[in-house]
Parts: sequence; C-alpha cells; structure tokens
Amino acid sequence: MLEKVNLKKVMIKEEYKPEAERLKLRLTELQQQVKEKKLPVIILFDGWGAAGKGSLISKLILNFDPRGAGVTSFVGADAAESRKPLLWRYWTAIPAQGEIAVFDRSWYQDITTAVLEEKVSRKERLRRIESVKTFERQLADDGTLLIKFFLHIDQKEQKKRFSKLEENKNTAWRVTELDWKRNRHYDDYYQVFDQTLRETSTEYAPWQIVGSHDQNSAVIQIYRTVVSEIERALERKDDKPASEEIQPGDFDLVSIPKLSEIRLDKQIEPDRYQQQLKEAQAKLKKLHNKLYRKKIPVVIAYEGWDAAGKGGNIKRVAAALDPRGYEVIPVAAPDKTELAHHYLWRFWKRLPKTGHIAIFDRTWYGRVMVERIEGFCTQDQWRRAYREINEFEKELSDWGAVIVKFWIHIDQDEQLKRFKERENTPAKRWKITEEDWRNREKWSLYEEAVNDMLRNTSTDFAPWNIIESQDKRFARIKALKILISAIEERLEKES
Amino acid sequence: MLEKVNLKKVMIKEEYKPEAERLKLRLTELQQQVKEKKLPVIILFDGWGAAGKGSLISKLILNFDPRGAGVTSFVGADAAESRKPLLWRYWTAIPAQGEIAVFDRSWYQDITTAVLEEKVSRKERLRRIESVKTFERQLADDGTLLIKFFLHIDQKEQKKRFSKLEENKNTAWRVTELDWKRNRHYDDYYQVFDQTLRETSTEYAPWQIVGSHDQNSAVIQIYRTVVSEIERALERKDDKPASEEIQPGDFDLVSIPKLSEIRLDKQIEPDRYQQQLKEAQAKLKKLHNKLYRKKIPVVIAYEGWDAAGKGGNIKRVAAALDPRGYEVIPVAAPDKTELAHHYLWRFWKRLPKTGHIAIFDRTWYGRVMVERIEGFCTQDQWRRAYREINEFEKELSDWGAVIVKFWIHIDQDEQLKRFKERENTPAKRWKITEEDWRNREKWSLYEEAVNDMLRNTSTDFAPWNIIESQDKRFARIKALKILISAIEERLEKES
Repeated sequence: MLEKVNLKKVMIKEEYKPEAERLKLRLTELQQQVKEKKLPVIILFDGWGAAGKGSLISKLILNFDPRGAGVTSFVGADAAESRKPLLWRYWTAIPAQGEIAVFDRSWYQDITTAVLEEKVSRKERLRRIESVKTFERQLADDGTLLIKFFLHIDQKEQKKRFSKLEENKNTAWRVTELDWKRNRHYDDYYQVFDQTLRETSTEYAPWQIVGSHDQNSAVIQIYRTVVSEIERALERKDDKPASEEIQPGDFDLVSIPKLSEIRLDKQIEPDRYQQQLKEAQAKLKKLHNKLYRKKIPVVIAYEGWDAAGKGGNIKRVAAALDPRGYEVIPVAAPDKTELAHHYLWRFWKRLPKTGHIAIFDRTWYGRVMVERIEGFCTQDQWRRAYREINEFEKELSDWGAVIVKFWIHIDQDEQLKRFKERENTPAKRWKITEEDWRNREKWSLYEEAVNDMLRNTSTDFAPWNIIESQDKRFARIKALKILISAIEERLEKES
Repeated sequence: MLEKVNLKKVMIKEEYKPEAERLKLRLTELQQQVKEKKLPVIILFDGWGAAGKGSLISKLILNFDPRGAGVTSFVGADAAESRKPLLWRYWTAIPAQGEIAVFDRSWYQDITTAVLEEKVSRKERLRRIESVKTFERQLADDGTLLIKFFLHIDQKEQKKRFSKLEENKNTAWRVTELDWKRNRHYDDYYQVFDQTLRETSTEYAPWQIVGSHDQNSAVIQIYRTVVSEIERALERKDDKPASEEIQPGDFDLVSIPKLSEIRLDKQIEPDRYQQQLKEAQAKLKKLHNKLYRKKIPVVIAYEGWDAAGKGGNIKRVAAALDPRGYEVIPVAAPDKTELAHHYLWRFWKRLPKTGHIAIFDRTWYGRVMVERIEGFCTQDQWRRAYREINEFEKELSDWGAVIVKFWIHIDQDEQLKRFKERENTPAKRWKITEEDWRNREKWSLYEEAVNDMLRNTSTDFAPWNIIESQDKRFARIKALKILISAIEERLEKES
C-alpha cells in the first residue's frame, strides 16, 4: 500500500490556511455531535519514527474540547502491563460513548516493529494479527468509529529529520540508537509495515496512509479524513443485517447436558466432606505456589442460580489461597461509566496478572443472561455475544491462562427453601432482595438462556462445569477438584 | 513499644475455637453495618518477614463479603509508581465509604526498611514521617477508620521460619537474600521499627502490636481489635469540635490582593499579541523538552469565573506542548464513586508522571468554592480544606513538582456580555447552561469564597496568580509568561 503514496505533494500556505480554518471549525462542531449521538471514536496514529506524529496529533487534539477528547501514548509496555495479555493496555484505554480517544502508537507496534526486534515467531505474528482484527471488529460491531492513520516518510527524509533533532541538545535525546538502526534497515521495516497494512485494512477499519513529507498537506488530509469519517459514522444507520440466530463463532464446542438432564441428588457425608475439604485445600495451596512461580494466571468464573451457594463455594476456594495472589471480583450491574463502554471493557480491566488468580463472582455472561432477559441489550447484541465471549476467552487461553467456569446448580424448590430461610434468619436477611424474588419468577426464561449459554460457550479451552449444589458440601468438593485438575493439567504442559 | 510484647503467650485449641467462631460471626455482622453507615475502613498489616501476614490476612478477609472488602498488596513500587509521589499508590487505593480495604504492607515500608536499604537521608525520613502522619490525619478527619497491625516475632523465630520455607521447593522462592540479610541485621531493623512505631502511633491512628509466635492468639487479638475498633467507630458521634474558622495550617502565606482591587483595563494589541504568543510558545516548547529530560513534573491549576476564557487560555498553553507529555484534565462534578471517597482522591489519581505536565481545568479548589456555596460539604469540611489543600500541594512541591495556579478574572458586566454572545452564536450555544446563569446570581458569595481561597492557599511553594482576562489576549500572554518563569526558576535550581 505504501508504494502508492505520493510523497512529493506540497501545499502552499495560501491554500492551506483557509482550508485548515474551515476544517478546524467543522471538527469542533462535529465533536458536539459525537457527544450527542454518543459515538465512541478512536483515532490512531502509527508510522515511521520522526514522521511527525507528535505535532500532527497536537494540532488535531486542539480542535477538540478536552471534556471528551484525550491522547494516550503507547510506548513500550511497562512491567505491570507485561504481566497482562498483549491487548490489555489497549482494551482498557478504549473511549466511552461520545468520547474521542487519540492513540499515539497502538497495537500495531506489537505486529510490526516487535516482529523484527523481539523474538516473535511467524506463528505468533499471525495469531496476533487475527487477535487485532478480532479486537477491531468487536469495537466496530459495538458502534466504535476507528480511524487508523499511518504516517509515511522515506528513508532519506527520516535520516534528515533524525540528524536535525540531534543537532539540538534539547531534542537530541529523542533520537535513540534504535531509531538509527531502524533507519539503516528501512527496507526491512518497509516490508513489514506494508504487509501488515495490507493484512489489517478491513472494511470496518481501513488504513489511511498519509504522506508526511509536507506537513500542510498531511494536516489537511488528516482533518478531511476525520471530518468525513465522523460525518459518515453519524449518518450511518445501523444498516448491518442483525443476527438471525445465536453466533458462537468458529470454535470447537464441547457437548454439555441441558440443565433439566442434571441429577441433583448427589451428596457427601459431613465427615468425608471435612476430610476431603482439608485435602483439597492443602493441594490447592501448593498449586498456588507453583502457579505463582511459573507465572501462570488463572481465571475462575462463577455463575449460578440465586442462593445456589456461589459465595460459600468461592470462600472454600479462597481459603486455600495466599491473599497476596488472588482477588475475588464481585460483579454487580454496570455503573454509568461501565455502561458507556463496550460490555467486555470492565472485565478486561479486572484481569489478573500472570501468576495471580482472579475469581469472578458473576461474569461477562451477564450479557447472555440478565441483559438478554431484561432487555438491557438488543437481540442482535446478545446473539453476537457468544462469539465475542468465546473470542475473549480464547485470547485469555492463548495468553496462557487457566480458565475454569462453574455453573452452580440447584432446582426451583431448593431455591424457594433457601430464600425463605434467609428471610427468617436476621443475620442473613440482607442477602435476599425483591429482585431475587422477581428473578425467580423468570426461572424458565433463565433456564433457556443458561442452556443456550452452556451449549454455545463450552469450548475446548474454556469448558463449562455444572456443579450440583443441592448439597452445598458436595458442590464445594466438586468445584475444588475440577479447579485442581485444571491447574494440574496446565502445569504438566509447562514442565 | 516492641519490648512490651509478650511473645510467649499461647492459646490452646479448646479456648481458641469457640472464641474464634464468636468473633467471626461478629465480623460478618459488622461488615453490614459498615456498609449501612458508610464507614470507610483501612486495616493495614506490617511487620517482620515471615511473621504470618499472609495467613492472618487470609483468615481475616474470609469473614467479609467480597462485595465491599478486598486486599491490596504493596510490594516494591513498579516503574510507573516510581514516577509518582511516594504516597500516590496508597492514596489511590483508599477505600470508598462502606468498604473495608486490607493492606498487605503499607507506606510504613518507605519509612522503615527503605531507610536502611535505600539512600534515604535523615532529613527525608523525617519529612516522610510528617507526610505519613498528615495522610493518616486527613483520612481520619474524613471519617476513615484506620487500624494498624504490626506483627512481631523475634530473630530466632524468624530464622526458624525462613529455614522451614526454604526446605520446600514450592515455598523456597519466597525467601530471598534480602530476607536473610534482614534476619542477620535484626537488631538494626528492630530499632528502626520500634522508633517508627513510637513516632507514628497517634490518637487518630494508634498502632496495634501483635505477638505473632502463636497463630491462635494472634488471630484472636486481631479479630478482637477489629471488632472493637469498628464498633467504636460506628458508635462514635462526630464529637470532635467543629472548626470555628478557616484553617490554612502552618504555612507561610504570600500576600495577594482581593479581587475588588484588581484593575481590569489591561490590554494587548493584536499584532503584539501574535508576536508575543509565538515567542512564548516557542520558549515553552523548548522548556517542555528540558522538563522531560530532567523528569520534572508540572501541575497547572486553572480556576476562574464562567466564561472568563479558561478554555482558550489552556489551548494556547497546550498548543506549545508535545501531546505525549501533557494532559488536560477537565474537572466536572464528582461521580458516584468519587463522591464516596475523600475529595482529594480523584485528584491524586490524575497526577502527572515525572517529566509530564497536567493541566487541570478546574481543580480541588471546588471544595472551597462550589461545594462550600452549594452546601455539598459541611462548614467544618470546607474550613478544614484550606489546610488539607496546602498540605496536598506541599506534598507535590516536595516531590519536585512545579505548581502554577491561575485565577482567570473578569468582572460581572463582561461575563454578562459573554453569556449573551454565547447564546446568540449557534456554534457556542452548548457552552452556556442554566447552571451558568444560576452561578452568576451568586457572584458575591463566590467573590467572598474566592478571596478566602486566594488569601489562605497562596503559599510560597504554590502561590496564586490572578490573570486579568477582560482582554483574553492579555490573559493568555500573562499566563504563558508566568508559567515560563516558574519553569525556568525550577530548572535553575536543578542545574
């Protein structure tokens, strides 16, 4: 794609000034519409070193009210970021509805320069490209406008600019040995950039290549593109055909019984329970140390009926863990800020570090259960969510995480018994709310949603486990055993 | 304080079990009351390595519902944290109202072990101790319950525990060379710990020393203390005498005129303005590079009347800066989460990294202006705030930040003219709201509040600058010049 760029075009001041003024005004106006129409906008800048990213971003951002627009620079990942999945620092920085996020560099550094400078295998590069495309598609599907600029200059121009920066004491530090190395190997980088641009210029997020020798024409091209892309996005009706049915995506699904097929009479005797609990917890404790040492992250997802015993089950797992290495993440209804973002955003934010365990008490599956049933999202959104969730969990699995998902199961009679018991016990009364009773009335709707969920998101890398919890003790031991064997399996691969 | 601890006490199982059960139940109950009464609680654990912090925290935290209780571990500061003020990572982790935050290690590592292991001068240690005491006092004044546990074991016991951990492959990595070094120099550490405990055991945040040889008695002591401290905090009426007057704290205040004394006829001609703007921006651009190189942070605070021209003024500063090194932070009314925290929390969170510039469009001074006038905080709270703000800015100044504060000033007639102009210009209409008109009616109340603010928070390290903005061009040049000279002054100190 780069070969088509005309690097010789120049725009004279007399031509530039009035056009720039016109576009600046339009950009300022458009931001108000972006706010009103709640459009999330990402404008990312990538390109050659010294191609002028800094000053072009600076000019662009000044047209926007800072209440609703900001710049994020993505330089090398720091120590904390390196202990998260590759996309983590980008995911957590996505804009809310109505906000404009300008990104200085982006996920593209991980599939371009990184490939030449770090040990990224060919296979891993391809995986990353797929993962980036999935990320961008998920954002686009959620309504985010993504504008991607690549600033292009040739080898000679880059060399000239580096030299000029080096002449001045105050800018010399900006030019590093790596920059010079990149300039010397310009052709290699050219090839990687060009190939990547071609591979990742999609319908939902096409690349905009900007010839950046002449600043005036670069500014005008950028302004014009941002104006027209925002205008188009604001006008665009959601004319994409809505999903006719549930889309689990292209994944190998593991077969799993329906809830109605589950026998709920399983029990364990109190004495055996105490014994097995002790043993399992001791084992888990040891494994936690190993996980920490090998820096393997674990994501545990708890879903289940109200009063099924999730809390007590989680407690028995947590009791075996070192508090410095795990976190229980209770998931309630999203708050205002969370609602204004992609629904997966709040879960990306809470992912564990490598070597740590995150226990989610309710999860991203809210999308295909409560949000589906209560109409908090559109039919199209929840039908699409199965695939998005599978993709999300695949990303975690590729990162190296152990993923263990539990559906804590009881029947309707048992729930009623427990609700009543809670109401009759003063110390437990806070645990039962009006909403629990309302949800109970929708049991069959939930059952259908749960069956859909189990069937469509039970992948080989993140299968569901149904935990019979009529007898809470039985449920605790079963969950612990499944968790232990999932961790052991993962550790075996490691050694 | 450590010499008084009885390390020989032992609690037998028969005594421990029933008492532990009783206290556990009480802890669970109390958490509900903590939630209802919106009490923020910090329980911090410090002490000797291998004193049992991990398992004691684990036991304690399991009594609480994770919705409202969590553990944060503060190990060595990572690269990102090191580029913030020392207290930053603790400030940003404080609990919201109704939440229990358990801290595994704390700010005390920076005034104990760090003193022996890093180059912390005697003077800097004393500064840190004052700063920690101020931090704790500010939290206590805001209603936070602070429980501080120090876990004590003797040298022999520590050695025994390290050896035992080393015997097992899976726990051996927990014992580092540094741990052994600390054990060998136990006496030196003892002295620093003991002295620090004495110096920082205050009325509002006393230390609880726990003899940790016998786990049972340690658990019981911790449970009992947490129970009684929470009970006390819940019962405690706000019986502290409320401030009778404004408290600026013990700071050297710089004299500053009242608003009514400001002459507003200052102007600059358009041609001279263009020339001076260009020069000032070029200068600031250079200085930004120097700041970055010397890793000096800059905090710019903008306050002023509605329509005084804050936005345009900020734009002229920002236009000179590299977007990768500054951020404009627009401050609106606090959201729900922010409201549930100490009012300074949201500003601590947004502090720049070293070498970066943060431009706050409205600031922490909202406490003594809009919150005072609209009754969003109590009289006692805003009267106390002058001191707290001075302390906050002192902390930033000690950290090495350049602090520049602007009051952008116009008179009532000019504001009316600008409001009307906004209403009559379609592209600017969104800038004017009902609230602006309502605030305008309270001009004299605001004027009084602003005068109080200017008088009581103009310190030698963070003085206020009144910017006459009847002529916006004059205001922009004046602000730029003040900013430039403040940075230059700071850079001179550096070289």
